[in-house]
Amino acid sequence: MTTSREVQLVARPQGAPRPTDFRLTEQPLPEPQDGQLLVENLYLTVDPYMRGRMNDVKSYTPPFALNETMTGGAVGRVRVSRAEGVQAGEYVLHDQGWRTHAVLDARRARVIRPLPGVPLSAYLGVLGMPGLTAYAGLLRVAAFQPGDAVFVSGAAGAVGSAVGQIARLKGASRVVGSAGSADKVRHLTDVLGFDAAFSYRDGPVGRQLREAAPDGLDVYFDNVGGEHLEAAISSLKPGGRAAICGMISQYNSTEPPVAPRNLAQMIGKQLTLRGFLVTPHYDLYDTFVQEVGGWIQAGQLHYDETVVDGIEAAPGAFIGLLEGQNTGKMIVRLEGQA
Amino acid sequence: MTTSREVQLVARPQGAPRPTDFRLTEQPLPEPQDGQLLVENLYLTVDPYMRGRMNDVKSYTPPFALNETMTGGAVGRVRVSRAEGVQAGEYVLHDQGWRTHAVLDARRARVIRPLPGVPLSAYLGVLGMPGLTAYAGLLRVAAFQPGDAVFVSGAAGAVGSAVGQIARLKGASRVVGSAGSADKVRHLTDVLGFDAAFSYRDGPVGRQLREAAPDGLDVYFDNVGGEHLEAAISSLKPGGRAAICGMISQYNSTEPPVAPRNLAQMIGKQLTLRGFLVTPHYDLYDTFVQEVGGWIQAGQLHYDETVVDGIEAAPGAFIGLLEGQNTGKMIVRLEGQA
Repeated sequence: MTTSREVQLVARPQGAPRPTDFRLTEQPLPEPQDGQLLVENLYLTVDPYMRGRMNDVKSYTPPFALNETMTGGAVGRVRVSRAEGVQAGEYVLHDQGWRTHAVLDARRARVIRPLPGVPLSAYLGVLGMPGLTAYAGLLRVAAFQPGDAVFVSGAAGAVGSAVGQIARLKGASRVVGSAGSADKVRHLTDVLGFDAAFSYRDGPVGRQLREAAPDGLDVYFDNVGGEHLEAAISSLKPGGRAAICGMISQYNSTEPPVAPRNLAQMIGKQLTLRGFLVTPHYDLYDTFVQEVGGWIQAGQLHYDETVVDGIEAAPGAFIGLLEGQNTGKMIVRLEGQA
Repeated sequence: MTTSREVQLVARPQGAPRPTDFRLTEQPLPEPQDGQLLVENLYLTVDPYMRGRMNDVKSYTPPFALNETMTGGAVGRVRVSRAEGVQAGEYVLHDQGWRTHAVLDARRARVIRPLPGVPLSAYLGVLGMPGLTAYAGLLRVAAFQPGDAVFVSGAAGAVGSAVGQIARLKGASRVVGSAGSADKVRHLTDVLGFDAAFSYRDGPVGRQLREAAPDGLDVYFDNVGGEHLEAAISSLKPGGRAAICGMISQYNSTEPPVAPRNLAQMIGKQLTLRGFLVTPHYDLYDTFVQEVGGWIQAGQLHYDETVVDGIEAAPGAFIGLLEGQNTGKMIVRLEGQA
């Protein structure tokens, strides 16, 4: 191959992104130089954090440039290696997503040796960045202890579904999740083993959470922000901890949020709220893959993927992700996959 | 003496408390029983947290009962002791304030042996609960490290003035405070050694804070909440910590606060917000008295008191405290003091 089909951002979304904010282009592929790989991407990921990068504001990652190909997680097969320690035919995890092919420095790629029974796409989800986000956020940032009662919002998503199941497998006294549809709620309790779940579309989050966790919470894992965070603050017991991972309710918002209005409860209940990114927690990666990979192989931890096919479907997959059309990890599968 | 003059709460304040919410009564004093002390109070304290106890809502301390004498910190002299280890004439710190005399169990009193050059009233302020709140909140809850840039709101108050000075004495790179008048602002920079200070009445807190701490903050000690917390979140650097001690801007409010609206910044900057009470930090008390007492004796740490005289002045002292009429600790001095 001499070209790569790639998705570029051509307009910064106002509120929810639209298909016309993106375009598909064909770009020439350079020859790999010493130390570089030519990779054929097999699976791409779209993630909520990418919405922030589409705004032209200073953030923890620089904004995507207009009229350039976006970046993001991808799993691919090495077609040409000019780097020591990486062989053609091996699988690599890297950050040159949103495209069918990539030429990149080998030090920016991580070689994957898939566990038996675990598909490659899992390394973009439950065994990748979202899974590690769940693992580190629950166990390290929120300092989960066996016996804790845990609430996770956005619980049907890639991160949330891992959070709830890791909490269950680690000995939580109660695991509660919220999602955005009755189907997802049933999935949480019937398939993922949550003790209780509710749809935030069915009524006030605060009331539903009190009913789902009448004895209160020790840990809240926040993917949503706003009304969910306010409800969790009210339900957290003294000494409670919240890991603030995302505020997806606000990503498309053009007005400042008004909730939570009850932060003063943090004082009397001595609550800790910690915002976090996964980046500084990659020291846990090997432990995480061993433990969570073992649960997957043993059939104790379930993960879902919503798969769309083809690079041309990537913008729609991302838009659908923000609308909650996925259950579990949203994956873009490319032609020619293994 | 056979009676005690005492202040009772007779109506729950709606918004700001009024003099008619309180009444002065004369109560008979019981005979001290085995294990008890009869104490003549010399100094009483009024503190912002008491406002919360005047509401009939579940909180970290139970509400004050209507038509009963309120409680709070006091320093008194033992007149009669029927307890081992406490002698008549000794000074004690206890929680039977808002009254001229008290009969109480000796185990609820702490004997004070005043440091030379340090007045008894200091044990209600800079060497008492407010001082320990500052010390534990800054050093333990906010995990202050030498070189940190620190912002404290309500900086002219009993807690805030100690926070800023402890930060300075522990090697802060910059200490910034906010207060509610030009006089207080001058006091912070000219007497207490703050690097910069501003009045929140002079303009938006966010803008004034950016000008006062152009390189950003590592630590925020929050006594105010609302707009101050929002401004601090914007100015905190990655890894920044906030100790949430009070939200005095909201104590008299009858409507929910709208700020902070920028909590989503907690994620990208990996901020930690921790609400706290002083109660679980009394294990630091002896270390605290030794260190802060030493600074006071060496003239390195300044403290202020606003003193009003007489039990009948206590309600007005409390109302004035919430209006910001004090500089430093608000103290009620009783007749017959040492």
